[in-house]
Amino acid sequence: MSKNYAIGIDLGGTNLRVALVAEDGEILKKIKKPSTEEIVASIIESIGEIRHDSIQGIGLGTAGLVDRVKNRVFFSPNLRAIEGIDVVSELRRTFGVPVFLENDANAAALGEKVSGAGKGFGTFVLLTLGSAIGGGIIYKGKLLEESAEIGHMSIQADAEKCPCGNMGCLDNYASARAMISKAVSMLEKGTESLLKECCKGSIYKITSEDIYRTALEGDTLSREVLKEGGKYLGVGLANIINILSPEAIILAGGLVGAWNIYVQEAIKEASRRAFKDLFDSVKIIPSSLGDNAGIIGAACLVFKELSRDLPLP
Amino acid sequence: MSKNYAIGIDLGGTNLRVALVAEDGEILKKIKKPSTEEIVASIIESIGEIRHDSIQGIGLGTAGLVDRVKNRVFFSPNLRAIEGIDVVSELRRTFGVPVFLENDANAAALGEKVSGAGKGFGTFVLLTLGSAIGGGIIYKGKLLEESAEIGHMSIQADAEKCPCGNMGCLDNYASARAMISKAVSMLEKGTESLLKECCKGSIYKITSEDIYRTALEGDTLSREVLKEGGKYLGVGLANIINILSPEAIILAGGLVGAWNIYVQEAIKEASRRAFKDLFDSVKIIPSSLGDNAGIIGAACLVFKELSRDLPLP
Repeated sequence: MSKNYAIGIDLGGTNLRVALVAEDGEILKKIKKPSTEEIVASIIESIGEIRHDSIQGIGLGTAGLVDRVKNRVFFSPNLRAIEGIDVVSELRRTFGVPVFLENDANAAALGEKVSGAGKGFGTFVLLTLGSAIGGGIIYKGKLLEESAEIGHMSIQADAEKCPCGNMGCLDNYASARAMISKAVSMLEKGTESLLKECCKGSIYKITSEDIYRTALEGDTLSREVLKEGGKYLGVGLANIINILSPEAIILAGGLVGAWNIYVQEAIKEASRRAFKDLFDSVKIIPSSLGDNAGIIGAACLVFKELSRDLPLP
Repeated sequence: MSKNYAIGIDLGGTNLRVALVAEDGEILKKIKKPSTEEIVASIIESIGEIRHDSIQGIGLGTAGLVDRVKNRVFFSPNLRAIEGIDVVSELRRTFGVPVFLENDANAAALGEKVSGAGKGFGTFVLLTLGSAIGGGIIYKGKLLEESAEIGHMSIQADAEKCPCGNMGCLDNYASARAMISKAVSMLEKGTESLLKECCKGSIYKITSEDIYRTALEGDTLSREVLKEGGKYLGVGLANIINILSPEAIILAGGLVGAWNIYVQEAIKEASRRAFKDLFDSVKIIPSSLGDNAGIIGAACLVFKELSRDLPLP
């Protein structure tokens, strides 16, 4: 009996990922390349390279806010080139199959549900912890079609302005970008740190991996930065727990690599803050699909929608 | 053709409300009395007074966190007497009909969906704005079985401790309790205000109605307190909008009476903070059922559950 296949596309960060995915979440072929301004052309070319005779459709997970009525992205500060363009119609015209659009973190949540760390949970929240913080919510086994912009929840109402327009967003305290910016500003003030010696002499090239590595070597500045970021992530976790009472929170993205300091601190802080009974019922665990969650989830949009027996577009 | 009926119970605040409700949300009989420590006895007596020959079940909306597995309330700081007791089994034994338990604000959200301001919306959030702040979420027409403790979302991560254990909860900035406490502390410091003359000479008897009334008379302190509370409510609204992208936010509870200052300020603040496209798509409107939303919603738990064809308990 042959499997069902779909193309999953992840336009989440600086890379474009395109894969051929089976209904059970297995990836058969995968392409990764830097994303360009020519998004549609680049996607079409990539799909051409891995095309399969019998794909059932194409699913696209992208950074930004998805307008589910107009089937477009209306706001995507980290990927402006996707805003407003009708990529869905273009792909549909080119490949003659149904095309579905979702936010990238939402798609990743669906991926974890279908074949990752979320398999055993009915209701969970996925957080992507990278240069920015994104979220996706699975409720009773299904993806909630909501913005889930958890990184842009204000946790310091009167604090600094976030590029999104809000003030004191979680993103400004607990993302890699926020922690790097904090480390750099401490270094600029002359704080001693092992970070000075890494990154080829320029403190402006520091990465979150540098911070975690030096923290493990005992660097005070790096430990402080990671623990502070983790503490604020914990504020976000407690808010999620108090509002959504999920069975699990699944953490994905590069910062999961800093689990032993950053995430541990977050869990400790959340345990102090969230309603005790709700905290005791939630499991906080790492993603099991890593970078593949987005493409798998995007492909699963196709199977999910087609199994609903919606009239095809 | 005869209608279907259920008993709806609202154990939300200081009062116990019990009503006979038809499936379309119509209230046929209603009892309201102060809640006592003898919760179960009091409920049984009230149901006896309005009992109907053919009720299909009993729905109970109560303050606190509901454990949906054990069918109990595990934490209810404002109604300790309900914690841990097996009211569901007791009512089922006494009346021989199915009994369903929900959080009171969740039940109110369901009530607004069935026959109130939420009728025309698929996805909305209901906020109860009273001495405390509660929430309930309707997604694609159905009640999300989640805690929805939106009042206990931290919006000032490093601020004062909330009685719930978290720090800087929305409840501590935007509830009636918070605003009254702010007004009292300003009066204690000697700030001039019309509030001094009302409330029979004791500033410790001030109500949120006093604050709104004197604010309308031009009192500076009262206007300031309401505007500040409204501003923080706006922070909460923006967080809800960014995370849940609802079609509407429905505001219920006593503070809705202070719409022209408090809620207007909240809407202004939310418009500054939330993602513009999401803010532009949300309607922020008052509840249309008022105090009846909870009992109607509680009764609707019965119809909702029975229409699912669940095996009866």
